[in-house]
Amino acid sequence: MSGADDQPRSEGDGPATRHFAIKLEYDGSAFLGWQRQGEERTVQAELEAAIARLVGAEVAVHGSGRTDAGVHALGQVASFRAATRLGPKDFERALNGILPDDVAVLEAWETVPTFHARFSTKSKIYRYRILNRRAPSAIDRAYCHRVPGPLDLARMETAARDLVGTLDFRAFCSEAAARKSTVRTVFRLDLARSADYIIVTIEADGFLYNMVRSIVGTLLLVGSGKMSLEAFRDVIRSRDRRRAGPTAPAKGLFLVEVRY
Amino acid sequence: MSGADDQPRSEGDGPATRHFAIKLEYDGSAFLGWQRQGEERTVQAELEAAIARLVGAEVAVHGSGRTDAGVHALGQVASFRAATRLGPKDFERALNGILPDDVAVLEAWETVPTFHARFSTKSKIYRYRILNRRAPSAIDRAYCHRVPGPLDLARMETAARDLVGTLDFRAFCSEAAARKSTVRTVFRLDLARSADYIIVTIEADGFLYNMVRSIVGTLLLVGSGKMSLEAFRDVIRSRDRRRAGPTAPAKGLFLVEVRY
Repeated sequence: MSGADDQPRSEGDGPATRHFAIKLEYDGSAFLGWQRQGEERTVQAELEAAIARLVGAEVAVHGSGRTDAGVHALGQVASFRAATRLGPKDFERALNGILPDDVAVLEAWETVPTFHARFSTKSKIYRYRILNRRAPSAIDRAYCHRVPGPLDLARMETAARDLVGTLDFRAFCSEAAARKSTVRTVFRLDLARSADYIIVTIEADGFLYNMVRSIVGTLLLVGSGKMSLEAFRDVIRSRDRRRAGPTAPAKGLFLVEVRY
Repeated sequence: MSGADDQPRSEGDGPATRHFAIKLEYDGSAFLGWQRQGEERTVQAELEAAIARLVGAEVAVHGSGRTDAGVHALGQVASFRAATRLGPKDFERALNGILPDDVAVLEAWETVPTFHARFSTKSKIYRYRILNRRAPSAIDRAYCHRVPGPLDLARMETAARDLVGTLDFRAFCSEAAARKSTVRTVFRLDLARSADYIIVTIEADGFLYNMVRSIVGTLLLVGSGKMSLEAFRDVIRSRDRRRAGPTAPAKGLFLVEVRY
């Protein structure tokens, strides 16, 4: 803990305000998502409470974006500012000491006042893990979505190509506000088989609500033969969420990287 | 469920006794290990209870070997016999339907009466996962052992080579009975770095109590520079558990495969 709390403070002689960014890993299983919501257990609330303990004052932590209940992160980025003598390495060590063990700080660094974890993003990368086998997994049960039946990876890849580029993703958005843009740019959308897994990786300049999970849910219809490639293209063109597939479960989804 | 339970039974017209083997995955985190121990939650007890429900009679399930509290399995093998009309696919489906979600049946097959999951083994393969980085892992916290400081993989590999072959592993055994043989044959002992992980793979014709975990604990002393290669060789020759390193935590250990 900083010794700063024990000292009388005034505008003049207190520690200067410093700006920090942190890279986070978290297991979404026991969180009601990223965003603070009253007394619910969320990642943002845990972080704000932990940082407040360290600096002795309330602190607002901004994430690169919300993740939903049950969604995991391997590289979420958040920013905050605090009047503190603590440096980034101090925050790294001290936060890992007091945070619950389903959140970890991978790295902390000092940043410029204009940096904002949400507004400064260039792109984000999500990964969705599909376990494609009949038997359930005991070890990985909270970190993948199991699909027992056969999946045609080549068909899924063909469909996925139609989602790369700048287009209106309204059909893959659970809560499209009428006047907000649902146009996003998907830079890449890869599928790869690795042992019993199909890993979907998607990088975009921004993501609509449930966008990755409804894309994956729809690609699974294509892969299992329940939706034709023509029907898939019609879903995109329709801009109608009801035409797309179901929202794939949260537990298969990982926020992997945020690029600035 | 089989309808067999509803029918009157006699020696003559009941179903014949059949012999089955099953391959299992389990998350050891919430188990007091493999072996049945009174009312404790163990994998064997869960399996015996589930199979008894399916066949309507008590059944003894034999594993290829015990795993300790907290140790995981990706390919444990167990055998049992039962007078049943159920086939292996029925057991696979039905057991996955009623077992708790931290145990999964990957495969079931019918086998010969002389097959015994423990006594018929030719070799077993264990894997130990070391996370070699400063930051803790949120996602993987129950499935690896984190070592924050630098590890010299080449030194660990050199030391590991002295453990391959037929030798007395008494120095790496927590509970050596005076008159029982502690000689085992290690067929291979590989270390590989993959991202932040060091994965130790060891195949042997049999394992003493805590053998993999005390080998890993000692190799970690070598890797961190706390034990010289000469001292490591002395530990082997000493046949003295007190000379070896600490027993590495259970949560990093996986029983990967059993060969028959």
